[in-house]
Amino acid sequence: MITKEQVLHALSFVEDPDFKKDLVTLNMIKDVEITPNRISFTVELTTPACPMKDHIEHACRNAIAHFVDKEIGVSINMTSRVMSKPDKQLDNIKNIILVASGKGGVGKSTVAANLALALQLKGAKTGLLDADIYGPSLPMMFGLEGARPKASKTSDGKTKIEPIEKFGIKLLSIGFFTDPNQAIPWRGPMVSAAIKQLFNDADWGDLDYLVVDLPPGTGDVHITIAQNYPVAGAVIVTTPQNVALADAQKGIAMFMMDTIDIPLLGIVENMAYFTPAELPENKYYIFGKDGGKHLAEKFNAPFLGELPLIKSISDAGDNGYPIVTDEDEPISKEFLIIAERVAQQLSLQHAN
Amino acid sequence: MITKEQVLHALSFVEDPDFKKDLVTLNMIKDVEITPNRISFTVELTTPACPMKDHIEHACRNAIAHFVDKEIGVSINMTSRVMSKPDKQLDNIKNIILVASGKGGVGKSTVAANLALALQLKGAKTGLLDADIYGPSLPMMFGLEGARPKASKTSDGKTKIEPIEKFGIKLLSIGFFTDPNQAIPWRGPMVSAAIKQLFNDADWGDLDYLVVDLPPGTGDVHITIAQNYPVAGAVIVTTPQNVALADAQKGIAMFMMDTIDIPLLGIVENMAYFTPAELPENKYYIFGKDGGKHLAEKFNAPFLGELPLIKSISDAGDNGYPIVTDEDEPISKEFLIIAERVAQQLSLQHAN
Repeated sequence: MITKEQVLHALSFVEDPDFKKDLVTLNMIKDVEITPNRISFTVELTTPACPMKDHIEHACRNAIAHFVDKEIGVSINMTSRVMSKPDKQLDNIKNIILVASGKGGVGKSTVAANLALALQLKGAKTGLLDADIYGPSLPMMFGLEGARPKASKTSDGKTKIEPIEKFGIKLLSIGFFTDPNQAIPWRGPMVSAAIKQLFNDADWGDLDYLVVDLPPGTGDVHITIAQNYPVAGAVIVTTPQNVALADAQKGIAMFMMDTIDIPLLGIVENMAYFTPAELPENKYYIFGKDGGKHLAEKFNAPFLGELPLIKSISDAGDNGYPIVTDEDEPISKEFLIIAERVAQQLSLQHAN
Repeated sequence: MITKEQVLHALSFVEDPDFKKDLVTLNMIKDVEITPNRISFTVELTTPACPMKDHIEHACRNAIAHFVDKEIGVSINMTSRVMSKPDKQLDNIKNIILVASGKGGVGKSTVAANLALALQLKGAKTGLLDADIYGPSLPMMFGLEGARPKASKTSDGKTKIEPIEKFGIKLLSIGFFTDPNQAIPWRGPMVSAAIKQLFNDADWGDLDYLVVDLPPGTGDVHITIAQNYPVAGAVIVTTPQNVALADAQKGIAMFMMDTIDIPLLGIVENMAYFTPAELPENKYYIFGKDGGKHLAEKFNAPFLGELPLIKSISDAGDNGYPIVTDEDEPISKEFLIIAERVAQQLSLQHAN
């Protein structure tokens, strides 16, 4: 009869490529069960969006075959428990991820919405907070114009805002509380108060990831969030255009300031090129080439991905569903890869 | 001998198509001189960027030929004196024009820079103030990275900032006073103080037009300028994308508020379509079609023009010269037309 020790010995040869340690040392192997014909166990990853998931499962099967028994059946339950640094957790929200850009109009909200949904599609409990006070685009991108969140009483008598759920994620936007035809001519202190309400007075429940879509710039919203909430890291979105890169750099500089100190999870290059349907071989680098890549190199930050200028992305957002909800769209795969890389960076941050 | 009265009688049949009155009633005819062989006079328009300039000159020649003498030589000196509403003038700045967008990244700074230069090319004394505190792009667009304005003492002992001159216009940007690699994590009151310095402590001299490039949104900068300075009107820049239009609408709503009340000069649609060099007949409406036009119709505002997504516009800005400085570029003509329409709208505002 095969023993649990034999199984663990075999799996101690399987290394997590991100953490550079074996699964047993990392305490990722749970619930080992052995019957005469079958070995079952659970691998608990640090995120359901782990890009190495298939690779690790495959390596586990090989290790059992090689070190234990070539013929025995193997059932592996791949699960995850999202990690969080204890000092970086807000109530039940394990990881707050900021999506920022410096310059506006580079597709920050599109990336934030698709990133949040991609994390959910990978199995994570996810929320999306639209903190772009002056130009909230979440209601339109999720087809929720005119929606109004409900308020509920908690057991201790406090009133809580209920985030709206759509496509499986929890959503809040300042746009749910304002008339879309009216401007929000608010000075800084009012903006800060509104942001705090969306964080503190909302019933987010248990979340693995709360993605926050920041306004452009480096102003009151950024300072308020950085000073009041434990942020796990920031994703920077830029186009390859020099003027966008210059502003992205300012955004990065802000996160790196001693008084703010938010880890940079990586850089997404959006509107990288345009390809007309009639000329599928051609890539038109309308805003220049590789600007985002060079920015990532300069700051020694991960380059998370390159997204082309595609009408369907813009159309999807305008029509109330972020594109990643359409799995037939080739670009959806790119967003899933970006989400995996973000989740991977967070797990690495927590492990270090 | 022809009399001055005969000349003025003839010219009283020439109507200014914008003001719907004749040139004599409008007091636009100056310095009439008559010799046996030649009639000379000056037509003083309300802006050097008058789109009707050629039309009016032609109509004057026809009127003289028809009502006075078919054979006599006619010399017309077309000049202008830019108008300003007395309560809308700041020191020697006749017209403050805001360029706003609601959403960032729609090409607001590109439009502001090319609009200012186009007004100058038409003969107006023009300044450009980059009020985009968090993402100043003027230094890069004008090839002035690292430039520092000089300070000078006025006769009453005050220190004045000297705007930098390039391509014939006066320029100031918060970017001239900050390190481009550093973020500007400023809360509202500091932003307002910086904006007031750029307006009040700068030696702008005599200007027909001061174009102000606003940050995206409807925040501290907008409120500070609207409450403290006599603004002649605002130009709204948008892309045809719904999310951009929604934010543009918020911007318009702000200008229309009773407490702000800034006239809308019109709407510019940017990134309207893309045309690859290999398919010059094709227009790819990547962000949707005619969104800016529909917005203009909705608010009964002039549609000032439609600009395609062109690599040379982006390249020019990245390389230190706004595209309108290159008169061989076909798109430069579009910017000149937009500038004429803006100047025309201002003249009409002042006349009403």
